[in-house]
Amino acid sequence: MRDAYIIGAGQTSFGAMPGESYRSLFTEAVDHALESVPAGIDADAVDEAVVGSLGVGGRQIGLSGPAVTEHAGLHGVPSARIENACAASGYAVRQAIQAVRSGMADVALAGGVEVMTDMSGDAAKYWLGVSGETEWERLTGTTFAGVYAQMASAYFDRYEATPEHLSRIAVKNHANGAKNPNAHLGFECSLEDATSAPAVADPLNLYHCCPTSDGAAAVLVAGEEVVGEYTDEPIRVAGVGAASERVGLFQRDTYTGIDSSAVAAAEAYDSAGIDPEDLDFAEVHDCFAIAELLAYEDLGFCERGAAHELVESGATELDGALPVNASGGLKSKGHPIGATGAGQIAEAYKQLRGEAGDRQIPDAEVGLTHNVGGSGGAAVVHVLEREVAR
Amino acid sequence: MRDAYIIGAGQTSFGAMPGESYRSLFTEAVDHALESVPAGIDADAVDEAVVGSLGVGGRQIGLSGPAVTEHAGLHGVPSARIENACAASGYAVRQAIQAVRSGMADVALAGGVEVMTDMSGDAAKYWLGVSGETEWERLTGTTFAGVYAQMASAYFDRYEATPEHLSRIAVKNHANGAKNPNAHLGFECSLEDATSAPAVADPLNLYHCCPTSDGAAAVLVAGEEVVGEYTDEPIRVAGVGAASERVGLFQRDTYTGIDSSAVAAAEAYDSAGIDPEDLDFAEVHDCFAIAELLAYEDLGFCERGAAHELVESGATELDGALPVNASGGLKSKGHPIGATGAGQIAEAYKQLRGEAGDRQIPDAEVGLTHNVGGSGGAAVVHVLEREVAR
Repeated sequence: MRDAYIIGAGQTSFGAMPGESYRSLFTEAVDHALESVPAGIDADAVDEAVVGSLGVGGRQIGLSGPAVTEHAGLHGVPSARIENACAASGYAVRQAIQAVRSGMADVALAGGVEVMTDMSGDAAKYWLGVSGETEWERLTGTTFAGVYAQMASAYFDRYEATPEHLSRIAVKNHANGAKNPNAHLGFECSLEDATSAPAVADPLNLYHCCPTSDGAAAVLVAGEEVVGEYTDEPIRVAGVGAASERVGLFQRDTYTGIDSSAVAAAEAYDSAGIDPEDLDFAEVHDCFAIAELLAYEDLGFCERGAAHELVESGATELDGALPVNASGGLKSKGHPIGATGAGQIAEAYKQLRGEAGDRQIPDAEVGLTHNVGGSGGAAVVHVLEREVAR
Repeated sequence: MRDAYIIGAGQTSFGAMPGESYRSLFTEAVDHALESVPAGIDADAVDEAVVGSLGVGGRQIGLSGPAVTEHAGLHGVPSARIENACAASGYAVRQAIQAVRSGMADVALAGGVEVMTDMSGDAAKYWLGVSGETEWERLTGTTFAGVYAQMASAYFDRYEATPEHLSRIAVKNHANGAKNPNAHLGFECSLEDATSAPAVADPLNLYHCCPTSDGAAAVLVAGEEVVGEYTDEPIRVAGVGAASERVGLFQRDTYTGIDSSAVAAAEAYDSAGIDPEDLDFAEVHDCFAIAELLAYEDLGFCERGAAHELVESGATELDGALPVNASGGLKSKGHPIGATGAGQIAEAYKQLRGEAGDRQIPDAEVGLTHNVGGSGGAAVVHVLEREVAR
């Protein structure tokens, strides 16, 4: 199999950007990705593009891929949109890796974009709701927060964790996001703030939920034959895993874990030839704080039922043994649906290149990204590895 | 590059199917594809799935991929939706080919599905309109037929063709579709019918426009290491080409051709090592009859401005030198947006296996499929080749 490398990645700030369009955001992300390539790159070198989006906020539902790539200076390349709810651009990156590994592209761009904050509350709820199951969840009145609230209730019922553990995750992610100039909610919060916030969907309170954001991110993937033209410090795609799961929660075997995450992670570790212990950091999908708690177990960071102990140990804090969501995660960095997965890769790229500023994890060599669609109907995991100078 | 093969393909009937859902349609198409594999195959052998759809008729906009694949017996596999307007499942097939050529899948399923006919006229117009450019076409009142009408007007102005040539294409495609039990409008029409029909968007009349349809199609792609397990008469993916073009017509260099089609075709011929003269048949994207006329030139079947002569010669009729749209094309077979591209591959598969019944093209060995998104914002071309018995 031809090896694939991340040669560049970038993102816009995530947040409320009423002065930007889905096209201007995507273009800015592509520009940042191109500029981040160590030895430089021309947009003409991009052979193919994959754009992750739930529906660019309803603005351009058809031909969304070409509509953004033409604007970003990638006119003419094969371009398509991939949709997998909140995992859209994680899957886009995986598809770009396939394009490169197949030999059909030397350099492929994967990005993502969403514009959410100018919607009314009802419209935003609709666009998030469509990532749940339609007939038995959305149309019966279950909100997206409600779906994760059911998972939290089941988890608390089965194991020792409490809502305070979710609040501690929020505190950690806000502390990290406060060091990230691109974060949507880039401020610190106290445990008091994060425990006393109003309920959104019991037992989840406001600080247990990520915001809806505008933003875009882009990643450049290159094949082993050409990677040397762009960098002498390549970041290798060591492992990739992906899986699907029943879209509707009620059809699943368990509420206290996400099977697609576990399957994708196992495949990613296996293809990378590593164990979770080998990771220096991880960016995981914390659309709700309970999702990060479940991820600790699904990704093998600890045993089933022990995630709250990992929280208590401080291991996943920025100075811990396995920092999780150094970027601030979806909670603090923000969650522009289609941009989130590529944004995680952009963070991992920065960390592996030592360019993460105040939130830099020292000597980071191996990182994992974990992107979930909906409540787990889709999941994709990447393991990235910094190679020694060639 | 690892070779990829089509080992099975199938589709539902296209038409108005109020008793079916997007899930039941997709499942039926997958069942047909699995059943069509000469040596048999189990659904468990499918490593990955890609689902083309514009938005499954608005029913399940998020996680549409997993929502249909879980129902079709493909629970757990990596599954995502790809959107490229009317070229969604043509791109899905290309993506499945990349998955197989990358070595990340041995067998990949690409399919497509759409449910359109239960919408009100306004809703259907909206869902088609979203495949045009939003700000400068749809929101200013240009319908999708109106976009192609502008292309027809420009073409008639520049070259010798007349609306009657479009009507002759409609007569041909209806004659073919009348031999296809899966066709939506499976009846013959006279030249009188096809010239005297009411205008939809001048100069296009009703017989110059395809219907909106419900339906699904699915294709199985396998790698060279495993193809022998499934068939001893493999259909090889000889060539693939894809490109994008400005989404808005007003931004393009020409209205009398679709650049993305020409670029995709050139790449497909080049990668297959063939010329247009080597083709035994083609399935081209005739959402409007003018689109088929333009395709003759974009795909190199004749010189620029000479497509009407090709129509007059009868060469593209079923018994001509290069039969085009033996299936009936989008005009007569129908056009369930997301299912169309995979449906073209399903027709090519049938033709290359000699299983096309009354519309069989004798000794068909090399066929081309051509799938266009919107008015040409995306295009994808495949060249398929029957190999001699192994």
